[in-house]
Amino acid sequence: MPDHEHRVRVRYGETDQMGVVYHANYLAYMEEGRTRLMASRGASYAELERTGFGLAVRRASMRFRAPALYDEELLVKTRVDRVRGASINFVYAILRAADGTLLCEGETELACIDLKSPDRRPCMLPESIRRELEPREG
Amino acid sequence: MPDHEHRVRVRYGETDQMGVVYHANYLAYMEEGRTRLMASRGASYAELERTGFGLAVRRASMRFRAPALYDEELLVKTRVDRVRGASINFVYAILRAADGTLLCEGETELACIDLKSPDRRPCMLPESIRRELEPREG
Amino acid sequence: MPDHEHRVRVRYGETDQMGVVYHANYLAYMEEGRTRLMASRGASYAELERTGFGLAVRRASMRFRAPALYDEELLVKTRVDRVRGASINFVYAILRAADGTLLCEGETELACIDLKSPDRRPCMLPESIRRELEPREG
Amino acid sequence: MPDHEHRVRVRYGETDQMGVVYHANYLAYMEEGRTRLMASRGASYAELERTGFGLAVRRASMRFRAPALYDEELLVKTRVDRVRGASINFVYAILRAADGTLLCEGETELACIDLKSPDRRPCMLPESIRRELEPREG
Repeated sequence: MPDHEHRVRVRYGETDQMGVVYHANYLAYMEEGRTRLMASRGASYAELERTGFGLAVRRASMRFRAPALYDEELLVKTRVDRVRGASINFVYAILRAADGTLLCEGETELACIDLKSPDRRPCMLPESIRRELEPREG
Repeated sequence: MPDHEHRVRVRYGETDQMGVVYHANYLAYMEEGRTRLMASRGASYAELERTGFGLAVRRASMRFRAPALYDEELLVKTRVDRVRGASINFVYAILRAADGTLLCEGETELACIDLKSPDRRPCMLPESIRRELEPREG
Repeated sequence: MPDHEHRVRVRYGETDQMGVVYHANYLAYMEEGRTRLMASRGASYAELERTGFGLAVRRASMRFRAPALYDEELLVKTRVDRVRGASINFVYAILRAADGTLLCEGETELACIDLKSPDRRPCMLPESIRRELEPREG
Repeated sequence: MPDHEHRVRVRYGETDQMGVVYHANYLAYMEEGRTRLMASRGASYAELERTGFGLAVRRASMRFRAPALYDEELLVKTRVDRVRGASINFVYAILRAADGTLLCEGETELACIDLKSPDRRPCMLPESIRRELEPREG
């Protein structure tokens, strides 16, 4: 299955005084990437929360290779790396859309949590979500 | 009653490529200002939410006079301008702590909302909050 | 001339614990709105900065009418209200795209500054920008 | 050498609709932690930039263990893990100040860059910075 592709354009407020995108903002781009991937597979995250389940980020890592600049269009490539009983791993590559330069590689592990339990404890992923997100052969 | 004073230090991620604090971040400084003012008067906002009431920003305005720079310490002066039955107006002045230069003046109007109603409708301020925040003579 | 229209989708990180978009984030939507308006008129802001001129926000105000929710698509309508010698006023209306509900009205005044002067002093708008942004009859 | 300790208080705008701090904001807390550590060792980052050197985040990773809530005071413990010729590794532990619960562990690698070179290329750390940040025995 090919990576999911999503485009975002860098906002002014996302840059810092070094003249490039502040590193924390890539996590927002990655969030947009996985949200759109999920929606494209019929597994809307907003919908998932309405049914009482949330996905909480448990691990996140990024490797920055080149800076993104203001007003540049970025290509966020997102892939489900692994689905386990109670968690999902996404991997990301963020490229400058104009020339395909790799800017950032990232990875997040999301744990399923029960939004109806008072302490929001971890729980098994709903079967439908697992089925829709499971990595498949292209 | 003298203005409440709170100090914040500018984070790197709050600057933009113009080399100054991005304008939207002043709203976060103003939020810190009124939160600390409320806490100092025994009207903790976190506590207020736990009792089922919220304060939603209904209007906000800012006038920028000089830029704030990375790592500068800012002095956020906050004052309750007016308390009505269902809303509170705060006014702010943000200064560079080192020399007292005025950087930004702001104003926000917050409406009390009932967090327990499904549509979070406006409601009267709890009497205790009104009493604690009412502007008084110094 | 009709308002410029731009669509943005609410990110998860833009919500707060009240379950709605945190008010400061509307300034980012408004920034996207005027950036796209300028680009659509051949007056790219990124390009303007490369020629040594910047637009600094001098005033901003917002009136919140209804909350925006996570994952909602918003319609940002932007209009140039007034162009003076050294400043531009933009007005905004942000609506829920699905049903046209008005969520937020805003206004910003931007001052032209000379990025090549050491203290970034105010300066006249380049004539080309003034011409491209001047409000015109539809 | 004991870890450097810095306290931050969670802002409302840093929470998301899950009612906890949005994960990307921990990177801002970590930035504050290393900035204050550097300042406490006489190696102010703002000062470093004024001399023409920057530190760009090249890698970042976080492991989230428990959520931080609005208005909580957090303790950011920062330690220099390793100084090499052209980069510095910081490690972080973020705890709830009230009870010492570990909320987040993080790590960042920062590369020294030459802000005066047009393409901001990597360069050796100034000797003074290396000396001041080198991990030492307590």
